[in-house]
Amino acid sequence: MSKKIVYDYIDQHFDEHVANVQELIRQPSISSEGRGIRECAQFIRGYFERLGCVDAKLVETVGNPVVYGEYNAGAKKTVLVYMMYDTMPVDEPGWTVPPLEGRVIDMPPFGKTLVARGAVNTKGELRAFLNACESIKSAGEELPVNLIFVAEGEEEMGSRNLPEFIGKYKEKLKRADVVFFPIVAQNQKGKVIVELGVKGIVYFELEIDGKDWGRGPTEFGIHGSNKSWVDSPVWRMVQALGTMTSKDGNKVLIEGFYDDVVPPPPEDEELLKKLQQTFDEEAIKEELKVKKFIDDLHGIEALKHYLYSPQLNIDGIWAGYTGPGTKTLLPHKITLKMDVRLVPNMGKEKPIPLIRKHLDKHGFSEVKIRILEKGYDWAKTSVRTPAAQAALKTYREFGFDPEVWPNIAGSAPFSMFNRDPLNLPFIMGGLGHGARAHSPNEYLVIEEGGPTAGLATMEKSFVSILYNLAEI
Amino acid sequence: MSKKIVYDYIDQHFDEHVANVQELIRQPSISSEGRGIRECAQFIRGYFERLGCVDAKLVETVGNPVVYGEYNAGAKKTVLVYMMYDTMPVDEPGWTVPPLEGRVIDMPPFGKTLVARGAVNTKGELRAFLNACESIKSAGEELPVNLIFVAEGEEEMGSRNLPEFIGKYKEKLKRADVVFFPIVAQNQKGKVIVELGVKGIVYFELEIDGKDWGRGPTEFGIHGSNKSWVDSPVWRMVQALGTMTSKDGNKVLIEGFYDDVVPPPPEDEELLKKLQQTFDEEAIKEELKVKKFIDDLHGIEALKHYLYSPQLNIDGIWAGYTGPGTKTLLPHKITLKMDVRLVPNMGKEKPIPLIRKHLDKHGFSEVKIRILEKGYDWAKTSVRTPAAQAALKTYREFGFDPEVWPNIAGSAPFSMFNRDPLNLPFIMGGLGHGARAHSPNEYLVIEEGGPTAGLATMEKSFVSILYNLAEI
Repeated sequence: MSKKIVYDYIDQHFDEHVANVQELIRQPSISSEGRGIRECAQFIRGYFERLGCVDAKLVETVGNPVVYGEYNAGAKKTVLVYMMYDTMPVDEPGWTVPPLEGRVIDMPPFGKTLVARGAVNTKGELRAFLNACESIKSAGEELPVNLIFVAEGEEEMGSRNLPEFIGKYKEKLKRADVVFFPIVAQNQKGKVIVELGVKGIVYFELEIDGKDWGRGPTEFGIHGSNKSWVDSPVWRMVQALGTMTSKDGNKVLIEGFYDDVVPPPPEDEELLKKLQQTFDEEAIKEELKVKKFIDDLHGIEALKHYLYSPQLNIDGIWAGYTGPGTKTLLPHKITLKMDVRLVPNMGKEKPIPLIRKHLDKHGFSEVKIRILEKGYDWAKTSVRTPAAQAALKTYREFGFDPEVWPNIAGSAPFSMFNRDPLNLPFIMGGLGHGARAHSPNEYLVIEEGGPTAGLATMEKSFVSILYNLAEI
Repeated sequence: MSKKIVYDYIDQHFDEHVANVQELIRQPSISSEGRGIRECAQFIRGYFERLGCVDAKLVETVGNPVVYGEYNAGAKKTVLVYMMYDTMPVDEPGWTVPPLEGRVIDMPPFGKTLVARGAVNTKGELRAFLNACESIKSAGEELPVNLIFVAEGEEEMGSRNLPEFIGKYKEKLKRADVVFFPIVAQNQKGKVIVELGVKGIVYFELEIDGKDWGRGPTEFGIHGSNKSWVDSPVWRMVQALGTMTSKDGNKVLIEGFYDDVVPPPPEDEELLKKLQQTFDEEAIKEELKVKKFIDDLHGIEALKHYLYSPQLNIDGIWAGYTGPGTKTLLPHKITLKMDVRLVPNMGKEKPIPLIRKHLDKHGFSEVKIRILEKGYDWAKTSVRTPAAQAALKTYREFGFDPEVWPNIAGSAPFSMFNRDPLNLPFIMGGLGHGARAHSPNEYLVIEEGGPTAGLATMEKSFVSILYNLAEI
């Protein structure tokens, strides 16, 4: 085998590979709105087929289809490639380019950068990984591992039907030795950050509706002057929420919320000690456009809070009149979108009953909880596993000394792979950089030569990871 | 003079009068959106001109124009007719007809009813009043009073530029003996309710923006998993709001909020004693679709709360992701629309500084207050004034024994007329019924024969009020 000729092939076909990514970006796949999902799934199926997969198909679920494909390289090792083809909506203000056009603009200090919904989360990497696989074959080589592709279309909806698929396909999936999720691991300064785990998540809505409550307006918002003698669902929700956190909004006051939290294990403490030496707080603040962390924490103390604290977040809240100018209204209903993030040892089935009990105990039984996602459990891979070591080896091949994070605060459905019935180790990564997932002007760096790798090096790193996984 | 031939004329031209109302409804005039304002103002100016007004014109302000017109009948008395030609927006869900089509549908138990934005608040009555005036002249009579028309286009924006107009026109306006606002005074069972006063109002926004705060996300909402180490403007706003009311949301805990409230004066106590005998709690609950009043108050106790309590209302609240499904987001900003209603003796300049002081004292100096309306002061007319008695006489002529309310909880710019520089008494009223101002399916009853008067009787009552005002 020669990775060199594959790398050369990638360089020679750079423009074509950029166009491939743009093509996929232009096909909307907004799962929460049901927009473009099936069309995008068919795109992906076509990619699998062209690569030479057998059995490339849409596997129906009660929700969006999983795109499945098997590539048999006659290799010893088999990698289950987890991918997501759905994205967030594009309706937030602040976009400076049309979010589904796939526009590549010059963005200092990165150079040419793709600014689009899905650029980094994660259609950009999905197509780049396929570019990488296609390049191995086009360069005259065979893939070093067998692949089982699982591209789901509901990651942004909590992968709600992925367990159904896994249950149905478990015998096929069990043949894999490892799960790999191709994503970019460099921060905006080019530092490689290896993330070994994810938090769990539960996502739900809280609501007070006058109709069910039996107080306040019951059918529609009424003239605002009626507040003087009619109850307000909005004020009641405010009071209910007020009991849930400390005054700074950072400590959760729901009884039992922190009960199952455990201190970082020794392996994590070791990683944190090393991480402390290179952790770049300012780079993260710059990326997030955040000036201060909670409690004015700095460095490793801030990071520990990020990695090991469960959270209760308000993702959205709305009631009444939200248009321009003035309209006096006593709203009949208020709704919130909220999430709980779960750290190791917290089960995803625990938070909702605790919140229910808290609300009832404080006299807010009219607040309804509507679970939108059954959720993910937390998941972790030990840095000592051959899979994690294979990824680290790739980064070193490219001259990077990666910073190893025991986990991240984000969530992904890895617990579905690394617990029963599959019990597979998982890794995620790749060179390259992008950011602003879920925000306007989401981006993925395309050009080399700036502080981070571009698309070509990203694809080469995916190639390298596959070769290294062949030897685990 | 013969009111009878005018009433006959109105009956004979019923269809034409309905069409006149529909024509005006179809011309949008949504002040908060700046939609159709100038076109609607030109409609009104045309009506004034056709009636025979001299000097019918648009008087420019820094905002929307006031439509002005003078009708000289050579009469002894002059009535300043206050009107509003603007409406609320139409973007709330729940409309069962297109809100600007002017559709007349059969609505039990009322019979034919106009369902449209502006039907009752108050383009319906505006056009009906002009139908009435036109009918007097078309029937061969002369108007019994001189009229000065003041139709403003910013009532739903707090009449923010009406003081400017009044200042400029005060010498002309001072010639009036009384201010009359044509509106419908019957509830859905047909009972006539005379309202002698209005509450004042201040309307404002509260906001926490991470950019100004220097904490939380500063530029855009960021991935929700960052709540673990980044402050949340939404949780902080929840905590700030939580300090402002009792747990039931009904008692305002802002220091000094109730300081200037005075008990009802003896004249009001007398009116309330009478009112107690006929006050129809269930009719109001049915109209508002409300099952219970606050604290389970009933009858006159509920009504007293409504009439004599100041309020702090949340008209709207929004932050973060409010679309379908799930999106994890830590919002960078939260905004509320709020109003304070002011009862007699409370000045409109008082509440905002009290709220500011409250927020600062509780450690929420990052909450910004943005005043959207300078507001109205409260206003009242004594039932003993000749103007109020003229209105009562009209209702009795039509066989009604009106229920007299010392005031209502709603607000109107009457303080601009009954204080300096004009010092004019004001009355509002007319037979007829409509409801759902500021709500979907706003309506105005058109047909006679149901529990309430329809359009024709409404117009006749306006005619009668003018004749009775001629004799004050």
